[in-house]
Amino acid sequence: MDAALTDLEPLFDELFPICRSITGPGIRSSFDILKRSLPLQVVEVPTGTKVFDWTVPPEWSLTRATLPDPDGEVILDTDDSNLHVLNFSIPFEGEVELDALQAHIHSIPEIDDAVPYVTSYYQRRWGFCMAHRQRLALKQGTYKVSIDTTIREGSLAYAKCDLPGETEDVVLITSYLCHPSLANNELSGPLGLVRLYERLKAMPKRRYTYRFLLIPETIGSITFLANEGKDLEDRIVGGIVLTCLGGSNTKVSFKASRQDWVGTPSRMDRLAREVALLDADTFAMRPFTPTGGSDERQFCSPGVNWPMMQAARTIYGEYEEYHTSRDTKALMTIEAVEKSADALFRFLQLHEVSDLFLQSTIEGGEPQLGKRDLYPTINGPMSNTMSNDATKDGRYLLELLLNMLSLADGSRTLVDIARKIEAPLLDLLPILQSLDEKGLLNLKETAAT
Amino acid sequence: MDAALTDLEPLFDELFPICRSITGPGIRSSFDILKRSLPLQVVEVPTGTKVFDWTVPPEWSLTRATLPDPDGEVILDTDDSNLHVLNFSIPFEGEVELDALQAHIHSIPEIDDAVPYVTSYYQRRWGFCMAHRQRLALKQGTYKVSIDTTIREGSLAYAKCDLPGETEDVVLITSYLCHPSLANNELSGPLGLVRLYERLKAMPKRRYTYRFLLIPETIGSITFLANEGKDLEDRIVGGIVLTCLGGSNTKVSFKASRQDWVGTPSRMDRLAREVALLDADTFAMRPFTPTGGSDERQFCSPGVNWPMMQAARTIYGEYEEYHTSRDTKALMTIEAVEKSADALFRFLQLHEVSDLFLQSTIEGGEPQLGKRDLYPTINGPMSNTMSNDATKDGRYLLELLLNMLSLADGSRTLVDIARKIEAPLLDLLPILQSLDEKGLLNLKETAAT
Amino acid sequence: MDAALTDLEPLFDELFPICRSITGPGIRSSFDILKRSLPLQVVEVPTGTKVFDWTVPPEWSLTRATLPDPDGEVILDTDDSNLHVLNFSIPFEGEVELDALQAHIHSIPEIDDAVPYVTSYYQRRWGFCMAHRQRLALKQGTYKVSIDTTIREGSLAYAKCDLPGETEDVVLITSYLCHPSLANNELSGPLGLVRLYERLKAMPKRRYTYRFLLIPETIGSITFLANEGKDLEDRIVGGIVLTCLGGSNTKVSFKASRQDWVGTPSRMDRLAREVALLDADTFAMRPFTPTGGSDERQFCSPGVNWPMMQAARTIYGEYEEYHTSRDTKALMTIEAVEKSADALFRFLQLHEVSDLFLQSTIEGGEPQLGKRDLYPTINGPMSNTMSNDATKDGRYLLELLLNMLSLADGSRTLVDIARKIEAPLLDLLPILQSLDEKGLLNLKETAAT
Repeated sequence: MDAALTDLEPLFDELFPICRSITGPGIRSSFDILKRSLPLQVVEVPTGTKVFDWTVPPEWSLTRATLPDPDGEVILDTDDSNLHVLNFSIPFEGEVELDALQAHIHSIPEIDDAVPYVTSYYQRRWGFCMAHRQRLALKQGTYKVSIDTTIREGSLAYAKCDLPGETEDVVLITSYLCHPSLANNELSGPLGLVRLYERLKAMPKRRYTYRFLLIPETIGSITFLANEGKDLEDRIVGGIVLTCLGGSNTKVSFKASRQDWVGTPSRMDRLAREVALLDADTFAMRPFTPTGGSDERQFCSPGVNWPMMQAARTIYGEYEEYHTSRDTKALMTIEAVEKSADALFRFLQLHEVSDLFLQSTIEGGEPQLGKRDLYPTINGPMSNTMSNDATKDGRYLLELLLNMLSLADGSRTLVDIARKIEAPLLDLLPILQSLDEKGLLNLKETAAT
Repeated sequence: MDAALTDLEPLFDELFPICRSITGPGIRSSFDILKRSLPLQVVEVPTGTKVFDWTVPPEWSLTRATLPDPDGEVILDTDDSNLHVLNFSIPFEGEVELDALQAHIHSIPEIDDAVPYVTSYYQRRWGFCMAHRQRLALKQGTYKVSIDTTIREGSLAYAKCDLPGETEDVVLITSYLCHPSLANNELSGPLGLVRLYERLKAMPKRRYTYRFLLIPETIGSITFLANEGKDLEDRIVGGIVLTCLGGSNTKVSFKASRQDWVGTPSRMDRLAREVALLDADTFAMRPFTPTGGSDERQFCSPGVNWPMMQAARTIYGEYEEYHTSRDTKALMTIEAVEKSADALFRFLQLHEVSDLFLQSTIEGGEPQLGKRDLYPTINGPMSNTMSNDATKDGRYLLELLLNMLSLADGSRTLVDIARKIEAPLLDLLPILQSLDEKGLLNLKETAAT
Repeated sequence: MDAALTDLEPLFDELFPICRSITGPGIRSSFDILKRSLPLQVVEVPTGTKVFDWTVPPEWSLTRATLPDPDGEVILDTDDSNLHVLNFSIPFEGEVELDALQAHIHSIPEIDDAVPYVTSYYQRRWGFCMAHRQRLALKQGTYKVSIDTTIREGSLAYAKCDLPGETEDVVLITSYLCHPSLANNELSGPLGLVRLYERLKAMPKRRYTYRFLLIPETIGSITFLANEGKDLEDRIVGGIVLTCLGGSNTKVSFKASRQDWVGTPSRMDRLAREVALLDADTFAMRPFTPTGGSDERQFCSPGVNWPMMQAARTIYGEYEEYHTSRDTKALMTIEAVEKSADALFRFLQLHEVSDLFLQSTIEGGEPQLGKRDLYPTINGPMSNTMSNDATKDGRYLLELLLNMLSLADGSRTLVDIARKIEAPLLDLLPILQSLDEKGLLNLKETAAT
């Protein structure tokens, strides 16, 4: 383990038990823990603030909720698992017959040993969540419900920090922090964000400014957009919403931004499509959709239309434990989150250079590669005519080099060339560097006219 | 039967026996009958008038043609069927031996019980048409041919009427009236046109002015174009040539206009392509071709290039009775013609709105659909997260709604959105109306910049 | 044999034995022989001249090279085959033990009865080439190597001639002349060029000026480009590098130019793609690649980017005799070279007219084809309604005619129309001529606006 990197395992263990919601003390104490790794600035937006079509909700906090059975035995207790209370449940104390209670209980018949995670943010209700197996065994009788929660004026909190770069252009990396004790669909994002922050921080130089943002899902991104979206809209060149970075899938998949969907893909969309094709062992691609997903739905609403992708390893629909008590560290694995963050770091490294235009420095005909040790000096049939290097790799790399030189007329970027010759971007990068070093190639920010 | 609608069955029975040709009394008496349903204005263009590369032909009329066999028995008589005379045959009285007669007889070996419909408009000939079976039984000997027709100076007649709309933009609906007693490939068009006229007339308002035109095929459209094409060319936004609207096929198929063929499809072409894809139970699409077809060949000649499609149910090549005495009401069915006209009416309703640009009224993030009863207020795993409506239809319609909102950035029409998400236009229309009513969407005639 | 055409067989026999290289007397004596058929002008560029990234090499000449075995028996002698010496070998006289000699011997284990053709132009070496079977039988002992070559200051020679046309626009036809006794991959190109020159010379008029160029491969095209490329770059409208025109393949295949590869195909590229699709018995197409090939690599380097294709019948990779002593007249066949040149001549005839815009002369509706004997005057079911010609060909050609007329709106060339209707260009050409003669079509150099 690199000493400069936060150990994610104890960080997970500290964050997991906290009862978070879209507002309230859970998210603030989570920020406090994360501040040990990230220089977070926490922003508070008062309850009732109008944010576009929405209104900032009050703060919700849980003290404890218990459900004793008719015999007085406590069968549900949020001290055991904060999933047992409907998230954002109103407080309630009272005696309820089983039949009436049923309307306040949430369970999943299909996965009868798991407690579901259920929310009701904008409609005032009280309720419990339990395993369906347990629900079926509930006794007839009177239940003394005790839900000790508060809903009161306060503020919505979100947190951010920057890694400055050579330009004011911003790459936005976000994740959400609003679910109680869930692993893949909660903590994998912030943990991956910590790792990505530390990888990017270690780069000798950065072309872009990286902004990191942790928000409650949906209302948090809408509040952020209303609060400071205008400041960012002209500076953002790309971004990724991190979600569900753990699990057993072998690839990190990108969900394209809406810009891609409507036929004007951002550069980051194009790069994601390329690596999904050309480095398909590591990356995959999903189309944008406004139905389902995370905060990219808000960042990609038609009035905002930011170039925000979403990245995930094992997403909703790919694992049945989603939004249940079975979404734990065992399912997610810290290692999978680390692998995801490292793949995304490599992707962002490519993004830093992927739009430079390649310009050959030779005016007429090919360069004489032989005198630069880039071409065989003897030529005959059946010999390895492509390279002094007798290995297949040598020939392969020389073919990439000849193709790159032929296409380097100042009108094409590395991505254009990779797409044209269907070669892995990660293979092309060292060739680009070699030709640059030997003076055969210039890299330019604007295309030749 | 809607009282405001003409009963097509007796109309058919009255029109069927008339001996029409491209000129002469047959077409005029047909117009007289149709005037009871349509406010037709009849235009007469004198014989000899130069119409582009063509010349308006003289008028042809048939009194009677008979062919007695060598024994004096009349074996062909146009009083039995006007198909028995070559259409536009010159008059002829004389005695002809069987061998010489054969050159003037037309029959179809492949369908030996049917009398073919044959014309010779621009080359002067006389001739008879008969069943091939009958022809094979002709006796050797002398035939006393009697063809009492006249060909004389006069005029070519066509007829038109308008349904005014809010704009001067014109949708042109045409059909032809020039064949004698044929059903699908003659009367189905004018009958369908009557029904379409009456459906459009009943609309509370019309955006477009609808012009209806009945002409003799080919020379009629060329004459119309020469006579008043210039007046219309800047106003026409789309149009349909009606032909062969009956028969057993289950779909109404559109033949694209030449504009579609050459890569600049009209809006009506695009709409037709969409419904052929998305409402494929009702509609189909055929490519434009300048070989074969009806008056769209003239309207779509390169010097004219109007956005004229052709619509048909069961066309040439799809039924062997085409251009024979077997093309009757039994084959065509009045019901099929009515179904065709109703489908085309729905198509034209879509055409009235299909180019409006959809603009979401929410500036940032998604609208809060929950507070408008368009989204579930409780959220958990395995639940129907897409709609309060637990049915599959509810989820399906909410997905359409979310997609429509996401794409409603002022740069897309209903057709653009339908194409993008591959949804039936007829499903999208009520969603559009609902979002419009709830103030979430504006409809604009020009795209957002 | 047309008396105006050079008999290629004796020409081949005279050229074959000469020991050519990229410089030296071999190429000059070859030019002298070819001057009997072509009015060649020979250009000399001095050794040491800087040509872009390269330098004109010295002249190389071979007197004789022999290799006696340890017993004194001469086992290799360039008087038997000039392939036995490494092309551009430095002179060397001396005694060498077998082990040391091995590093200077080139052979092909996979084709052990063939002498390979091997070069070392830019790295000074001496060496022999022999059959691998012979190499394996070499005796241990001392070899008295004698390589009598010279490498000295001089000049690089290339040759050119023109066939003037109506315009200054140039079509460039090149081939290379730098290999010793090889047939398909050396003489097929110059021989085909002679035949093509004579065919084009016999045309009554030529729109383009045809420039013919014979050069040593790679360094010759780079030298030509440095020497006179600027004069030509604004005039060149297309060109073909001739190589490997013999062999057993049934088609002449074009390698597209780099312009095609980067998405801006030249007109000649487009024409080649069309004939490869539509006349696929005669022509085929290969994509451009900067790895492998002939002088098109230089003409198509990114700083030059000329519209130069390459044409071949049986190329490298399609015959194992390539670059060996088995590439002889028997393999190549003179007849195959002649067939290639004739196919290329037909291609260039199409190229002379393929960009004219077709404009129908009829303003409205279709022309009345019947009165011009282009359409049947009688019309009935099952009859041949497309043409007075009852044959299938007649109908087929009338369909082509109707399509051509419909598309002849002044915005399309013959190639555009052929692509649109997927018809052979060679079938469309006579129809174009017929419509032109009957005044129904104009041919224009600029598109209608």
